Amino acid sequence: MSSASPGAAVSEFDLIRRHFTRSTTHTELAIGDDAALVRARPGMQLAVSTDMLVCGTHFLADTDPEDLGWKTLAVNVSDLAAMGAEPRWAFLALALPAVDEAWIEAFARGLFACADAFGVDLAGGDTTRGPLNLALTIIGEVPQGEAITRAGARTGEDLWVSGQPGRAALGLAALRAELSLNAAARHECLAALQRPQPRSALGQALRGLASAMLDVSDGLLGDLAHILERSHVGAVLDAPSLPLAALLATGAPPGSARHCLLSGGDDYELLFTAAPGARATLGALGARLGVALHRIGFITAQAGEIMLHEADGQRVSLAAAGYDHFARKPAPS
Amino acid sequence: MSSASPGAAVSEFDLIRRHFTRSTTHTELAIGDDAALVRARPGMQLAVSTDMLVCGTHFLADTDPEDLGWKTLAVNVSDLAAMGAEPRWAFLALALPAVDEAWIEAFARGLFACADAFGVDLAGGDTTRGPLNLALTIIGEVPQGEAITRAGARTGEDLWVSGQPGRAALGLAALRAELSLNAAARHECLAALQRPQPRSALGQALRGLASAMLDVSDGLLGDLAHILERSHVGAVLDAPSLPLAALLATGAPPGSARHCLLSGGDDYELLFTAAPGARATLGALGARLGVALHRIGFITAQAGEIMLHEADGQRVSLAAAGYDHFARKPAPS
Repeated sequence: MSSASPGAAVSEFDLIRRHFTRSTTHTELAIGDDAALVRARPGMQLAVSTDMLVCGTHFLADTDPEDLGWKTLAVNVSDLAAMGAEPRWAFLALALPAVDEAWIEAFARGLFACADAFGVDLAGGDTTRGPLNLALTIIGEVPQGEAITRAGARTGEDLWVSGQPGRAALGLAALRAELSLNAAARHECLAALQRPQPRSALGQALRGLASAMLDVSDGLLGDLAHILERSHVGAVLDAPSLPLAALLATGAPPGSARHCLLSGGDDYELLFTAAPGARATLGALGARLGVALHRIGFITAQAGEIMLHEADGQRVSLAAAGYDHFARKPAPS
Repeated sequence: MSSASPGAAVSEFDLIRRHFTRSTTHTELAIGDDAALVRARPGMQLAVSTDMLVCGTHFLADTDPEDLGWKTLAVNVSDLAAMGAEPRWAFLALALPAVDEAWIEAFARGLFACADAFGVDLAGGDTTRGPLNLALTIIGEVPQGEAITRAGARTGEDLWVSGQPGRAALGLAALRAELSLNAAARHECLAALQRPQPRSALGQALRGLASAMLDVSDGLLGDLAHILERSHVGAVLDAPSLPLAALLATGAPPGSARHCLLSGGDDYELLFTAAPGARATLGALGARLGVALHRIGFITAQAGEIMLHEADGQRVSLAAAGYDHFARKPAPS
């Protein structure tokens, strides 16, 4: 961590720093100097991502600090998973309005739980006084030339999504009392929202298999559009192949379930494309990792266009601004 | 940059991102995917530093945005200089209360001016809505094993400081109308405060010469204490060797000039130790780089103790909490 901020008592911030200072396993020099020192392994390219979480924009002031600590790191681990990269080092800059030691202790506990789960060293950062703000930068490694970008999707390839997108959005709607879920489903959906499980092992295993990939943070349709834009292709979504059944079983109204599946963010599932020849390998991979992989459509040459093929044969174009409007309009229920 | 924030219109943040998207020279994949991709050169260790600047704590809301853009990057370049590392890639997370395009454009201009001056690629980041907050992470390179930490100072070595510490603090005091400076000095001191020039070339040139180093961000005495603590040594400061003359020539009261020299932060000069045998080499280096290097004292075995040797033979101990009190008390004038 760098030096204390002007206007803050040194001892207060020393106290905070103690909560974030722990032994590291693969960092050559961690917290306590002007910079941390780390070394990339031979043949490795570095993948770097930064996310800033702001109180009132990304989370509420009364969010459980332990969950928040987990999520602050988890969303960055997910960004690296989406590149096929292994997370290695994290750097946390945080602004705190006041020193609430219980809050800080719980936040650090959540952060380190996630760090332990994914093999990340907290190698440095900065602590200062200000409106609550969490900025985390993560550095990971990926074998040179093997990173999976958003730009590699080709016409005729399959479109896949991992796990169960939509649960986090249902959880948020339930928290806001916009809908009600049955008890077990509510628990699961809140866990998806508050303790997202980034698909780190899956992302790394998809090197050499996925041609384009990202993590679903803004909603399946919106994020699919990012792949289409960078790859200059279009996509067909096969409605009956979408993993809707589990969301319908939550007790949510069918319209809301479908809306959350297509447009809900915050699940941090992986959306990727792969050649049809990889289907058997992907099936085995999902089974080995215990992650459902859903083949939900395919890539077309119609740049930027998303077509939805409904079970009844209806074909809905979600081209251009259409998908955005579709993704963002209130769900019928 | 990663995806837009909840609650923010996508187009607004796309607009912001355009101001921060520029071609890069040594980044394999920059803004626009889940993570940036960069590659360390063979034999290089990575030095990583993060600083968070908060409106109201580190700068005022009416700070010139172009200066702020420069300084946001410059303070991080300085952290790497203090390790002997070459700055390479920056990642900016910023929270903005509203989209003020003129402000953003000026901030980006200052940031990129600094990036150009020091060979840094802006390789990624995040933009979100929230109270004004700037978190910058910088990654640099240093040949493996050659980084200069705070821990290498040895008894009998010389203590050096670069340039003119104290000008930024005098500039701040002048801005606050706590003292007045003559016109030319005021201009210089405000420039030191608003457009600090990190000692990047000097820091890198000191590899193999300096045994311990840091940048003076909190004040010479307070930062010296960090070297002493990490190196388990003490120091004698030779008062007549301190570069006070130029500060006295500003028109500031002598007490304030001395206080700003010893305790003022924000100049980002380098404070380092070196063996006496390096004096001639350091003299030549300073001349070559056009940077004054002042030999201001030496390292002792009295761990944690700072002794000030005055011109009149008086010896003042600034041990333990003493230096801190000394450093922070209001200056007599």
